[in-house]
Amino acid sequence: MSIQPRPYAVLCGGLGGSRFVDALAQAAGPEQVTAIVNVGDDVEILGLHVSPDLDTVLYTLAGLLDEERGWGIRDETTNALELAGRLGGETWFTLGDRDIGLHLVRARMLREGVPLSEATGRLAELLEVAVRLLPASDDPVRTFLTTPAGELDFQTWFVRNRYADEVTGVRYDGAERAGPAPGVPEAIAGAEVVFFAPSNPFVSIHPILAVPGIREALAEKRVVAVSPLVAGQAVRGPLAGMMATLGFEPDVRGLAAVYDGIATDILVDPVDAGKLPGALVAPIVMVAPESRAEVGRGVVEALG
Amino acid sequence: MSIQPRPYAVLCGGLGGSRFVDALAQAAGPEQVTAIVNVGDDVEILGLHVSPDLDTVLYTLAGLLDEERGWGIRDETTNALELAGRLGGETWFTLGDRDIGLHLVRARMLREGVPLSEATGRLAELLEVAVRLLPASDDPVRTFLTTPAGELDFQTWFVRNRYADEVTGVRYDGAERAGPAPGVPEAIAGAEVVFFAPSNPFVSIHPILAVPGIREALAEKRVVAVSPLVAGQAVRGPLAGMMATLGFEPDVRGLAAVYDGIATDILVDPVDAGKLPGALVAPIVMVAPESRAEVGRGVVEALG
Repeated sequence: MSIQPRPYAVLCGGLGGSRFVDALAQAAGPEQVTAIVNVGDDVEILGLHVSPDLDTVLYTLAGLLDEERGWGIRDETTNALELAGRLGGETWFTLGDRDIGLHLVRARMLREGVPLSEATGRLAELLEVAVRLLPASDDPVRTFLTTPAGELDFQTWFVRNRYADEVTGVRYDGAERAGPAPGVPEAIAGAEVVFFAPSNPFVSIHPILAVPGIREALAEKRVVAVSPLVAGQAVRGPLAGMMATLGFEPDVRGLAAVYDGIATDILVDPVDAGKLPGALVAPIVMVAPESRAEVGRGVVEALG
Repeated sequence: MSIQPRPYAVLCGGLGGSRFVDALAQAAGPEQVTAIVNVGDDVEILGLHVSPDLDTVLYTLAGLLDEERGWGIRDETTNALELAGRLGGETWFTLGDRDIGLHLVRARMLREGVPLSEATGRLAELLEVAVRLLPASDDPVRTFLTTPAGELDFQTWFVRNRYADEVTGVRYDGAERAGPAPGVPEAIAGAEVVFFAPSNPFVSIHPILAVPGIREALAEKRVVAVSPLVAGQAVRGPLAGMMATLGFEPDVRGLAAVYDGIATDILVDPVDAGKLPGALVAPIVMVAPESRAEVGRGVVEALG
């Protein structure tokens, strides 16, 4: 694995994160980008370690993602899950068959003692992904949400309960004992700009920042938080509602408050340009893969 | 799990074994049969414990087997294996997607400390299989073959090298330290008749007999060995060639020599009736599932 510093480091979660990393990689070249990916959503399903955010970024960059669904692999089947379900295995978290092929290879590496960061690097190389992909940590960090139904782990809240439970608090279990994965502090230190991808700050970006050493590494950097809200709405997912119940305005001003003292710049979509004086402005809607190169170029230009 | 003694106990391997157990279950009722299955072929593939003989018997009795191929599940896909292969996982041993569904559930039970016999019982119950299925042992017993290419583990010899290497010796690694799985001695002791299924004696039946306690349990019993050879040929597989290189006539006389002092009766197909005076005789070709009930009835009648 190259240890050349790369100009862009991106802290990110899954869907919005993967699209932004793809946009930046298309605009600036994949060798210019390091993605530092949230592991707070990681979960064990059918005995397999699953890293949903890492997988979404990996599949997106490898051209395997089911872009329609926004997760998993294209043209996927679910035959393994179906029989496992008949045999008492859990089916609430959908693992496709191809997906399981990757999980089997990775789970074996992890059981053999290969750190997640090294496993990720090997898989990315085999899938010819030139963006450098790093988990935030090789140690377990797990996001838990306080709700009226009690404290729920991320996947129970998000997938099993379809984020129906109101969130009044967030906790990153294990974070205080975790360390950044090898290469993470160096990727931040060597970057010209560190982006926060347009991911959910509470369940994608904050669990990365909660790993001791990462927030400190950002202290002297230019940190540009790309807004996951456009006109007060998340492109997808429960962010607007979470911001309200966690005490923030569900718009770019609220986002600026969330990242106050951490980000040096907020980058917003032109529709929100008037709402936040001093914000960087560039179009940031990039659902369609073919729009991403242009979004990436616009973001790089907006840096000035 | 019921501990009622059952009149028939069958020591068996995969394909021929599963068909014979199915035949006997169809003729006498599944609740009358205990199958004691070889584990010498067990192998770890993509980090999953695979028990090919147990799986073939289970799939056959559950009506899931791909009867055309003689292994695996009907209407199977191999998408997991394909992506695992792209990521450096081994692909020489075909695991179908549905198959992997079962392996995931079982591998997790085993990692949690559930013995193979208990895992097998749970899976059989969930698949509504009323034959009692027992692995010969919960301990690792692995068949190795001496060949001019060196000593090879069973699956390397059989699947990877397609049994091209001449076999001059067989060894059951771990057998001396193994014990019979819970229920095996009782199933033998309680049976009116113990069958050796028409499986390969060297790689299916002997690895069961090599487990201390099992051969001893047979000493006072009526033991009927069903010939895996019909007119000097195995219905499938490399048995005839192995018998020759291991110093036995490749026919029912050779089989009688292999089981001398262990089996009390040899049961042969009518085409071989003249070759072995004193043998029990019944039709034993049962490739087609619809022929099995009749084969089973003929075998039970031939017991006299």
